[in-house]
Amino acid sequence: MSETAEVTRILADYVVHAQPADIPASVRHEASRALLNALGCAIGSARHETVENALAAIRDFAGPPQAGVFGRRERLDALNAALINGISTHVLDYDDTHARAVHPSAPLWPALLAFAEWRKTSGADLIHAFVLGVETECRIALSVFPEHYDRGWHITGTAGIFGAAAATGRLLGLNEQQMRWALGIAATQSAGLREMFGSMCKSLHPGRAAQGGMTAALLAAKNFTSSERVLEAERGWAHVTSTRFEPTVITGELGSRFELMSNMYKPYACGLVVHATIDGCIQLRNEHQLQSQDIARVELTVCPIVMELTAIKEPQTGLQGKFSIFHAAATAIVFGAAGEPQFGDAAVNDPRVVTLRRLVTVAPDAALKKIQARISITLKDGRRFEKTVENALGTLARPMSDADLEAKFRSLTDGVLDNTEARTLIDLCWSAESLADGAAVARATVPHA
Amino acid sequence: MSETAEVTRILADYVVHAQPADIPASVRHEASRALLNALGCAIGSARHETVENALAAIRDFAGPPQAGVFGRRERLDALNAALINGISTHVLDYDDTHARAVHPSAPLWPALLAFAEWRKTSGADLIHAFVLGVETECRIALSVFPEHYDRGWHITGTAGIFGAAAATGRLLGLNEQQMRWALGIAATQSAGLREMFGSMCKSLHPGRAAQGGMTAALLAAKNFTSSERVLEAERGWAHVTSTRFEPTVITGELGSRFELMSNMYKPYACGLVVHATIDGCIQLRNEHQLQSQDIARVELTVCPIVMELTAIKEPQTGLQGKFSIFHAAATAIVFGAAGEPQFGDAAVNDPRVVTLRRLVTVAPDAALKKIQARISITLKDGRRFEKTVENALGTLARPMSDADLEAKFRSLTDGVLDNTEARTLIDLCWSAESLADGAAVARATVPHA
Repeated sequence: MSETAEVTRILADYVVHAQPADIPASVRHEASRALLNALGCAIGSARHETVENALAAIRDFAGPPQAGVFGRRERLDALNAALINGISTHVLDYDDTHARAVHPSAPLWPALLAFAEWRKTSGADLIHAFVLGVETECRIALSVFPEHYDRGWHITGTAGIFGAAAATGRLLGLNEQQMRWALGIAATQSAGLREMFGSMCKSLHPGRAAQGGMTAALLAAKNFTSSERVLEAERGWAHVTSTRFEPTVITGELGSRFELMSNMYKPYACGLVVHATIDGCIQLRNEHQLQSQDIARVELTVCPIVMELTAIKEPQTGLQGKFSIFHAAATAIVFGAAGEPQFGDAAVNDPRVVTLRRLVTVAPDAALKKIQARISITLKDGRRFEKTVENALGTLARPMSDADLEAKFRSLTDGVLDNTEARTLIDLCWSAESLADGAAVARATVPHA
Repeated sequence: MSETAEVTRILADYVVHAQPADIPASVRHEASRALLNALGCAIGSARHETVENALAAIRDFAGPPQAGVFGRRERLDALNAALINGISTHVLDYDDTHARAVHPSAPLWPALLAFAEWRKTSGADLIHAFVLGVETECRIALSVFPEHYDRGWHITGTAGIFGAAAATGRLLGLNEQQMRWALGIAATQSAGLREMFGSMCKSLHPGRAAQGGMTAALLAAKNFTSSERVLEAERGWAHVTSTRFEPTVITGELGSRFELMSNMYKPYACGLVVHATIDGCIQLRNEHQLQSQDIARVELTVCPIVMELTAIKEPQTGLQGKFSIFHAAATAIVFGAAGEPQFGDAAVNDPRVVTLRRLVTVAPDAALKKIQARISITLKDGRRFEKTVENALGTLARPMSDADLEAKFRSLTDGVLDNTEARTLIDLCWSAESLADGAAVARATVPHA
């Protein structure tokens, strides 16, 4: 049979038989980077209202205390822990982003770490399972992208569940047929509407993907059957949810091309389209030691889409600030950073920021890409500084360094973990692959205080 | 705004404010009939391999023993009980069928009874919530039917979750806004592919609908937000999953037309297309006290679709027997019944049945509907008996009587419940509305032995 006719089998066989030694060191290191970034996001939102509400809803129904809630002291059964941690990893929209489709980590690390707390798993096995999960979810996503997304599906949820099923299925030691069932059981639970963007349900999607994917693997391990051709069948997942399906995207270069190497991390706590502007503003501020009170005007030139998405001139809340390029530029110059605190209610209403954002003007230039921006800052004394950002920090051409990721992690976990706890967890992420007990990473997210 | 623009709000408001006293007695009695039928199906498959596998997969993760597994002694948290009982209610495909779309009970009774075991609920409130759940799931299903189904969605799962959310949401006392959130959270978990037909996942769908719908209501009760226009929004559930959306199907005659009155119950343990043939064969057998060894030939004339779907001439297993009109006619004549035992492996290989089915011939007639058949039985002594079935037993024009439903229940539960237990549970179903504690029904499914 052709690859088209056998894509589910080919993918399942790869996930079952792939060997850790065949994963390049650079890919394995990227898994550690994704882990550090995901845990920072989750711990930083451990007390987010969305997480609190979800926890309040399911608490009475949770099973034995098998796995922890990242950044908190509660323990839940592993499936409910995967749900809650999937929500917290994504709720700030500050988690990782594949260059073309899903947020890879939010459906995966919560399932994998919950699994490792439930059943002892080495760090090396966790890292390997994560890599396989990313390949599974990203390749399936890209095989139906963008038509699937354009129809209205939140692809991080709908494709993420396949990744969670494959990754935890690998750890369960599923055979080839069971892995096909796991993918099928994942497919028939695959859900999540873009209509939910702007509500708490957006982060429910990766939570449900983590929980549902792990459930799919557990069911398959007990020989709960499904279609064995769920991806390619005439009434299979791809054709039901998309007008495009390109199976060779899934099967091509399996084991040699790694989608994880197209993973990106957000340096700033807002939408990607504002990142080039923030990046340039921070660079100019630091290079010239700019003080906001000395500035006469800030002139931005950006891709036209930026003005469509972030045009709020006078934001009143932190959330509105994330959709204001005026605030983004001002807060970056005032604070020299653009993490969650710089997009909080206090920062949005800080008099220095308010004054400065009213001096910001924006012009569109269709020649610029979303990841590019030109910034011109004129001081009251007449001096003028300019910066053109070709590739915003965090894009593939200019990735965040390991040190950048550590700084982001510390900014997110400040107030939850103390310095020692943060250092310990950072080191555990970097050395994850050598841990005899991978669950040590999950346990280290829990603050002692 | 028009009804089109406000259908989610209108439906939510109805579910929140409907009064039990406004539900006609005939509709409330139909709820008891649905309850009896659903519990018979669930108890009869309490040890089905599909149920065993699912239970084995989730057992380690289940929470406090809040609710029972129908027909078994295990107790699980209410959400997992809803999952397992949703599977067992549907797994035989012997549960109820709305005249045009979903299987109404399988996503609903498991959620409602689990809820009642978790939090005390009167029988009257359970019956009322069931009626509202049926309206919700059936109207939403019909608003996108058949295009949604034709695209490949298993509508019992995809629409059933709305019913479970509405019904349990009503019991939780959600306000109007929370009910809209519950419908939204249900929508964004809505899933289930027809590709799974023939595998264990088919019955996973109502199980997940029951569990996910109740989860949606619990989340909404804790102010977990979603889109408030999930049905009608441009990127809402209807437009993402169907090319047809007729909102007036949802809003029309709310509170006066009851879809539950279009509910049907299967008298025979096989596909509907064979029912007219079985019905006629049993009638002829009983009217003329036919003995299989006296029969020379059985000539059937049926709707052409019947021959496409049930053409297996020499079935070897019970499951194959369900797709053999030859076996169906023979087993009905030999046993005078066509329940699960008559479609078991033993019946399929019974020498009397094997001999008789080889004397069966089938002819198509495009003038006949699926629910019609003509049967002619010729004896070896030359006598000939004929019967034309215009409406198979179990169709809306010729519904199963309460006594028929009791007999079906006893056939299904034989070997699980003893006579007294069966009688007790039947009586509880008929009197459900007057129970101070509706959970008594669920508890009575548990065999003492």
